[in-house]
Amino acid sequence: MAKTGFDLDPRLEEDSLSVCDLPLCAVRLMRDARFPWLLMMPRRDGLTEIVDLDAAERAVLMEEIALVSEALKAATGCDKLNVANLGNMVSQLHVHVIARKVGDAAWPGPVWGNGRAEPYSRGNAEALARLIAGGIETVIAGRGGA
Amino acid sequence: MAKTGFDLDPRLEEDSLSVCDLPLCAVRLMRDARFPWLLMMPRRDGLTEIVDLDAAERAVLMEEIALVSEALKAATGCDKLNVANLGNMVSQLHVHVIARKVGDAAWPGPVWGNGRAEPYSRGNAEALARLIAGGIETVIAGRGGA
Repeated sequence: MAKTGFDLDPRLEEDSLSVCDLPLCAVRLMRDARFPWLLMMPRRDGLTEIVDLDAAERAVLMEEIALVSEALKAATGCDKLNVANLGNMVSQLHVHVIARKVGDAAWPGPVWGNGRAEPYSRGNAEALARLIAGGIETVIAGRGGA
Repeated sequence: MAKTGFDLDPRLEEDSLSVCDLPLCAVRLMRDARFPWLLMMPRRDGLTEIVDLDAAERAVLMEEIALVSEALKAATGCDKLNVANLGNMVSQLHVHVIARKVGDAAWPGPVWGNGRAEPYSRGNAEALARLIAGGIETVIAGRGGA
């Protein structure tokens, strides 16, 4: 897996905080208390579409999505996961993994373009990011390694 | 890859027409002339989340998404692909692969929950489905087989 430079888009960086780095992707938590909402960015510059990755990298991306999905579901007890690459506004390749609950602020619609982000109370975003990072480690350990 | 029964959700069936069947997924075109919009359903009953597939099936799903994405991009000359599993309304596992153009009816927002579907003119949906099916065959041939 070629890993050259990686500069996170400034808008993605501002809107989120770090959860952890996986072999391919940086995992970050969106600063929006309405939804437990993760972003996954393959750490390579110049990517826009999933098909910009080669087949081996796509396979890793899928398994990292599955890992993050399992950890997010376990941490939140959500009713549905929403997994998406849109990139209509920020072109840098990023995959959303969002824990949805029946009756949440956008249910059953999509979260994008729905109202405004609500800030987390002091320390809560960092605490949730740590909880999810721990959950990801637990799933990796349960699989017998990264 | 276990392939047992598969009954397509009636709402997905009504809203779309068949493009082709890949080894894992049924590929269908949404009856909405505003966006070239494909659905991919792994042909197994009882699936809701991507993580309901096992790792081998997830790898196949990812490569079928890449195949369909390349064919859709070539057929439409789109500016961005939107690839998503939401499933907040129809629980049967389905992945959207949508060709987006700058300035289309929902740009830069997501297509879901945005206005009403516009019917294709007579024969046009079937013609686009055939075009995309042919494009998928071309991509498969270019890869040296299915």
